Amino acid sequence: MNWQNRLTSILKINFPFVQAPMLGITTPAMVAAISNTGGLGSLAIGGLSPEDARKQIRAVKELTNKPFSVNFFAHTIPAEDQSKAYQEMVSFTAELCALNNIPFTPPTFDSLKFHTWKDQLEVMLQENIPVASFTFGVPDQAGIEQFKSKGMVLIGTATCIEEALLLENSGIDVISVQGSEAGGHRGSFLTSDQPPLIGSMSLIPQVADAVYTPLLAAGGIAEGRSMASAFVLGAEGVQVGSAFLACHESAAGDKHKYRIQNGSAIHSVLTRAFTGRWARGLENNFIRKIEASGRTIPAYPYQNSLTTPIRSYAQQQQLTDFIAIWAGQSASKAVRKPAAEIMQTLIQQAEMVFKSFVQKKNV
Amino acid sequence: MNWQNRLTSILKINFPFVQAPMLGITTPAMVAAISNTGGLGSLAIGGLSPEDARKQIRAVKELTNKPFSVNFFAHTIPAEDQSKAYQEMVSFTAELCALNNIPFTPPTFDSLKFHTWKDQLEVMLQENIPVASFTFGVPDQAGIEQFKSKGMVLIGTATCIEEALLLENSGIDVISVQGSEAGGHRGSFLTSDQPPLIGSMSLIPQVADAVYTPLLAAGGIAEGRSMASAFVLGAEGVQVGSAFLACHESAAGDKHKYRIQNGSAIHSVLTRAFTGRWARGLENNFIRKIEASGRTIPAYPYQNSLTTPIRSYAQQQQLTDFIAIWAGQSASKAVRKPAAEIMQTLIQQAEMVFKSFVQKKNV
Repeated sequence: MNWQNRLTSILKINFPFVQAPMLGITTPAMVAAISNTGGLGSLAIGGLSPEDARKQIRAVKELTNKPFSVNFFAHTIPAEDQSKAYQEMVSFTAELCALNNIPFTPPTFDSLKFHTWKDQLEVMLQENIPVASFTFGVPDQAGIEQFKSKGMVLIGTATCIEEALLLENSGIDVISVQGSEAGGHRGSFLTSDQPPLIGSMSLIPQVADAVYTPLLAAGGIAEGRSMASAFVLGAEGVQVGSAFLACHESAAGDKHKYRIQNGSAIHSVLTRAFTGRWARGLENNFIRKIEASGRTIPAYPYQNSLTTPIRSYAQQQQLTDFIAIWAGQSASKAVRKPAAEIMQTLIQQAEMVFKSFVQKKNV
Repeated sequence: MNWQNRLTSILKINFPFVQAPMLGITTPAMVAAISNTGGLGSLAIGGLSPEDARKQIRAVKELTNKPFSVNFFAHTIPAEDQSKAYQEMVSFTAELCALNNIPFTPPTFDSLKFHTWKDQLEVMLQENIPVASFTFGVPDQAGIEQFKSKGMVLIGTATCIEEALLLENSGIDVISVQGSEAGGHRGSFLTSDQPPLIGSMSLIPQVADAVYTPLLAAGGIAEGRSMASAFVLGAEGVQVGSAFLACHESAAGDKHKYRIQNGSAIHSVLTRAFTGRWARGLENNFIRKIEASGRTIPAYPYQNSLTTPIRSYAQQQQLTDFIAIWAGQSASKAVRKPAAEIMQTLIQQAEMVFKSFVQKKNV
């Protein structure tokens, strides 16, 4: 079957298949495995220091000479003072940790230091990365021009038609269209309160009608039928995340993988509890307690910094009630196999779906 | 192209195409137009008196001798006392109506009378209707047997895998799988608080893997690509609602149709404000005011009865800020054409999507 299209040509890959960046889950080995199999691996560097970002990028480069992308967060630090909400959340969270025997030394408010995409820009430009993808916003025009001056391809993230139009008008090369099914953070940036939660079935055809830019369908794609349907809906490629959560190269621990594979979509929730930004994952004790507290959750990245020590400890100790178990609504389809094999299986299944339709429907 | 499958054979129709029941929008003319074109029209009778239900059914029968379905609500009246919440909501709503010059004579709590599916059962059995569909629950086993003794085909509604399994185990013939994209009431019945909001891209393949029963995909299907993708995802038919909101046979007024056609998916909200059950529609003043009031919204069908006089007046006067503008996330695709033409266009578009894929991908 012929998978070549505008997207494979722009990204210089064999299959229109992108592994979604998943901070904390994606490893250089996962990125390289996908790129070496003819897809586009994506390394997540959102919030990392420039030095850590460089180390991760170089680790990928040691494992592949194929194109891969680096994914950054294009947000700005909120202007409103977060100190009061931060202090109150620290005291609530400290009690919660004490009750659960979790050591917790939160960073003091004044010591907080955030690394934005502007801090990471030089590293990305220096490392000659072919593709940069981003979420939570759009870089300013000066930044976009710097990426383009290095010949980098840019992939932006949209959760509604309005965001897709803004990305196209900013000269972004590819748009990742994030349906409400997607796990992890919502990429939304035009609405201030609740993010748009538009299902892929509605979102992809509407965005495809509104923009000329090639689209990646993201959210809910975890087996052959959903992969095939993304193309039918008007996307030219897929971005697959949750299907790799339990793969051999994933940084998730065994219990974390177990919860992913056994979680039903009805236990999938949207929450600001872990980072201050809306994200989809499986409900657990931490989410329930933070939400039931009624406390104001500091905005991203404040709450993210506050909970980082808890999540790091929980990940080490496999305390899944205190890990952010980001997962899309099809995450239970995740399997414990090498990433390359998962990608190949999805492509083969999608081909079979197309073929069976041609036979059954006498198209 | 060959559209015949298990579903067309069970429902005795030419195309696996069902017009979704939309109480207040669907007219006998709309139902008959779809059935006469080879699909299955659906008449909504949820909450109607047996006499009114019979009148509507007979009106359809005068316009078609093809199969059509009658859709009822399979809920039970909540056991908890709703009188306090009802009184408080009456006083808040009365103020809101006075401010907006809307005459409002709410039914007194003691005068409330609800017509459940059990009250409508005899009419449905007597009228020799070929298909009954339902939402908000599952009829008890005795009821199911009465329908089956008359040879009626039953279509149930599921919003998650767990509900689909329960319907299959109850002997239901066809399952309508309602993705989060769908407009109007959520059909959910297994969860008490927030209903599952699983996007079709995730929901349909997961339900197709879990049950053997043929599936209707509902939610977000409003043009050829989404119709075609429903089959690719594993459904054997589609249930289309919002695409008919502005059709010639729709009971919606001109301003109501205008809002539907010009509403963006980002203005789509889930609310209990109008009926006490979660439903998707376009945000308006009534929803905003009720939700901002912080008052407890009485459970369905109490809030539904309370707001009925407001909505009837608003519909007459075309006050779209007080009409429940139920709409799915693809509702802006609705066009002002005869229902039959809309159905035929969707089928033709879906055929073209399949054909173009066969050519482009060399399947």
